[in-house]
Amino acid sequence: MQLIAVPDLPEIGAGDDLAELVEARIDLDPDDVVCVASTVVSKAEGRDASLSSFPAGPRAREIADRLAEIHGEEKDPRFAQVVLEESVELLMEAPFLLTETRFGHVCVNAGIDRSNTGEADLLLLPRAPSESAGRIRDGLEHRNPVVVTDTCGRPFRHGQRGVALGWAGMPASRDWRGERDREGRELGVTVENVIDELAAAANLVAGEGAGGTPVVVVRGFEFGELEGSDEHFRAVETDFVRQALRGWSYEGEVAR
Amino acid sequence: MQLIAVPDLPEIGAGDDLAELVEARIDLDPDDVVCVASTVVSKAEGRDASLSSFPAGPRAREIADRLAEIHGEEKDPRFAQVVLEESVELLMEAPFLLTETRFGHVCVNAGIDRSNTGEADLLLLPRAPSESAGRIRDGLEHRNPVVVTDTCGRPFRHGQRGVALGWAGMPASRDWRGERDREGRELGVTVENVIDELAAAANLVAGEGAGGTPVVVVRGFEFGELEGSDEHFRAVETDFVRQALRGWSYEGEVAR
Repeated sequence: MQLIAVPDLPEIGAGDDLAELVEARIDLDPDDVVCVASTVVSKAEGRDASLSSFPAGPRAREIADRLAEIHGEEKDPRFAQVVLEESVELLMEAPFLLTETRFGHVCVNAGIDRSNTGEADLLLLPRAPSESAGRIRDGLEHRNPVVVTDTCGRPFRHGQRGVALGWAGMPASRDWRGERDREGRELGVTVENVIDELAAAANLVAGEGAGGTPVVVVRGFEFGELEGSDEHFRAVETDFVRQALRGWSYEGEVAR
Repeated sequence: MQLIAVPDLPEIGAGDDLAELVEARIDLDPDDVVCVASTVVSKAEGRDASLSSFPAGPRAREIADRLAEIHGEEKDPRFAQVVLEESVELLMEAPFLLTETRFGHVCVNAGIDRSNTGEADLLLLPRAPSESAGRIRDGLEHRNPVVVTDTCGRPFRHGQRGVALGWAGMPASRDWRGERDREGRELGVTVENVIDELAAAANLVAGEGAGGTPVVVVRGFEFGELEGSDEHFRAVETDFVRQALRGWSYEGEVAR
């Protein structure tokens, strides 16, 4: 399996055709998986925005006040407002905002980026990343599988890693249930989330910032003769961590 | 960047020299990263074990009784015993055991495998995976970086993915702080856990079960001119999910 960073992509702006820009820079094989960073998807979809468009309501002001007290620095309540508007559930309010976005992804600040945004203040995540992936895929000659990626942190483990936000043209995971080990016993491992693994792999070659390459092609990935499934975000009923967070609130120090 | 599954490894047993077995099957470049599944590391280190060696104490019996009630099927208290012995903290007791292992990894059942274990009942994780990685590395002619991998689930996201348990010869993460985007602003993304991403990438080609290839070589990964760090597991003080779990207990249905 090979990972190829697509070279020389220009700065992306609203209305740009990502599929066309990619095809002009690399000869895609029919089975290549095209991993596209959500930042360029958002830019192409005009998801940059300005804080001034999000006048803060009372809930946002309350959240920002508490965060300001905890962190000992001013917090713009309009930023809390845009995070609330992009989210369907607030999992943590302090010491930072952890929410579920409208498309099911749990991350800090609804994944809203305050760097890398040209003239605007904010870059929001794509509204529906799997639909974005589908549109990019439709623009590719071979209709390759497409994964829209981002990076985010997680509990228990230090640092960020690449994750998939949306996908099209392949299943999200493959199911090893029923497969057997060398002694003929059924495997303990069951469902492997391959789109998250593809996003993590792509992030190793994509890099960040000015020298970054937002599109990475994965060549020679073999899904295998396994059942696929399109579950990607965990259902609340099986997410005990999420249930625990519902009953928890931060009681740490203020003004660290 | 390229991922190469090392072909034709034999069934691994206690005392086998993994470095020698790998070198006999692939010509390693000096910069190749060698990703080794923890199952074969455990087997080489004689970490297979038998349930009969873990007579259950009162705490293990209490845990097993509760799990039996919840799941409506018998649970062997000796299995709870071995999980307790491999762990330093119990994060969840029900509806499954989530613990921190002695080397800092948070996972279900202390990562103990009940398949794929030859004559014994159990395969425990390596005692100190980074030391295992160091020993394998010392056996390689070019002293390549080595990552010991496993697969596990996580909150918020469906399915399992490859993760790193231990590493040697490279930093665990790279730090993008101070790097700038195309508009000259500082990046929001800071620390990228590259060993977890390498493990995820390796898992895409490793496969599971009888047809699986437990050693995968990553060729052409460029760490870049960035600061590295060896933090890998999250410190409890910054892990609010973990703090939330300490105050939570399962109150779901019994005998589903």
